[in-house]
Amino acid sequence: MSVPPSEAPARPIGVIRVLTSEDPVGVATHGTAIEERYGLPTVSRCIPDQPYGIHDDESEARAEPKIVALAQELADAGAQALIISCAADPALQETRRAVGVPVIGAGSAAAAVALGLGRWVGVLGIRDEAPPAVRALLGDRFTASARPHGVHRTTDLLAPEGPAAVLEAAAGLVASGADTLLLACTGLNTIGVRPLLERRLGVPVVDPVLAAGLLASYAYGA
Amino acid sequence: MSVPPSEAPARPIGVIRVLTSEDPVGVATHGTAIEERYGLPTVSRCIPDQPYGIHDDESEARAEPKIVALAQELADAGAQALIISCAADPALQETRRAVGVPVIGAGSAAAAVALGLGRWVGVLGIRDEAPPAVRALLGDRFTASARPHGVHRTTDLLAPEGPAAVLEAAAGLVASGADTLLLACTGLNTIGVRPLLERRLGVPVVDPVLAAGLLASYAYGA
Repeated sequence: MSVPPSEAPARPIGVIRVLTSEDPVGVATHGTAIEERYGLPTVSRCIPDQPYGIHDDESEARAEPKIVALAQELADAGAQALIISCAADPALQETRRAVGVPVIGAGSAAAAVALGLGRWVGVLGIRDEAPPAVRALLGDRFTASARPHGVHRTTDLLAPEGPAAVLEAAAGLVASGADTLLLACTGLNTIGVRPLLERRLGVPVVDPVLAAGLLASYAYGA
Repeated sequence: MSVPPSEAPARPIGVIRVLTSEDPVGVATHGTAIEERYGLPTVSRCIPDQPYGIHDDESEARAEPKIVALAQELADAGAQALIISCAADPALQETRRAVGVPVIGAGSAAAAVALGLGRWVGVLGIRDEAPPAVRALLGDRFTASARPHGVHRTTDLLAPEGPAAVLEAAAGLVASGADTLLLACTGLNTIGVRPLLERRLGVPVVDPVLAAGLLASYAYGA
């Protein structure tokens, strides 16, 4: 027996942000992008006490237990699936072990989508090296990684010179042979730089937040 | 300057079938499923002289150069991207080397989507072992693989007892702990067994054809 859709509200996708903010609109940015593009209900929450997000090994290690704890809260509150909205896939395996719902990592989702779009994938992020989870999935389709000049933390992207620095780094990846770009920092979604890059460089640019939403949308479209 | 959509018809997704058929409707089955679900234009073609498709190492090796040749034809004819519509991802790397457009393998697409939907993925196919490409991507989320009783080739699925045998094998995977099923033969899409499995077993079932279409849809939705 199936229940009419109006009587069975869809359980939301829980979106875990790794950048702490007191601003509910800011926290919901990624969830809102997923809602707008895929029509999926989302609920967004951020981990505490990391106003600069995840930007090195230390900040990643510090975030991991908080991500697992927040995932458990969201699952207990009824989330149908969870997205860890960070391209480094922090705590992905630990979270999958801790909760009884599917967990999508934005980084591995982006790698899967990029492999479907291009032959040579360049990775643009806020660290010199591409996230290991992304690198491993791309295999020999990985070309190179680049970090915009002057950017070390996701919050640096919000500076006035952020978009120009991103464009310069992205152009370098294309010049070195990439025919597809993967944004390995979800802060690059926050600043909305993807349309600019696609227009100026003429290559598809994979946004990790939208890639994660795409994989989540499969369940809802069934 | 952007051109209005009506003046710029979208280039189709080329769908490569590995089961030879003289029936154009049959050849277009997968493409039609992608068109209906994602609204993407497709053009479908099948490789020659393999009326039983790919069902063992010998038939896979025989198919590989034909897949590469057909991919080149479709790319030359203007396909925007290609889908190799077989869960074994036959000739995926060779095809990527041979053409200048993105190439999506139905098997690795299904694995990516399954990882976004579930924790423990059971693989249902027409061979005793899961396709290596699928197995590698699933990593430690792979639980087990199963082959329906009496089924050795994709064409066996079309027999009257096909759906019941598929259901029995699928139920065995769920009993052994799988919370998500991956259909590792695109012929399982052809017989339309996915809704039956989801209804009877209560787990998400990933169709490799639709998973490939999902990844392709990202480019068009930009």
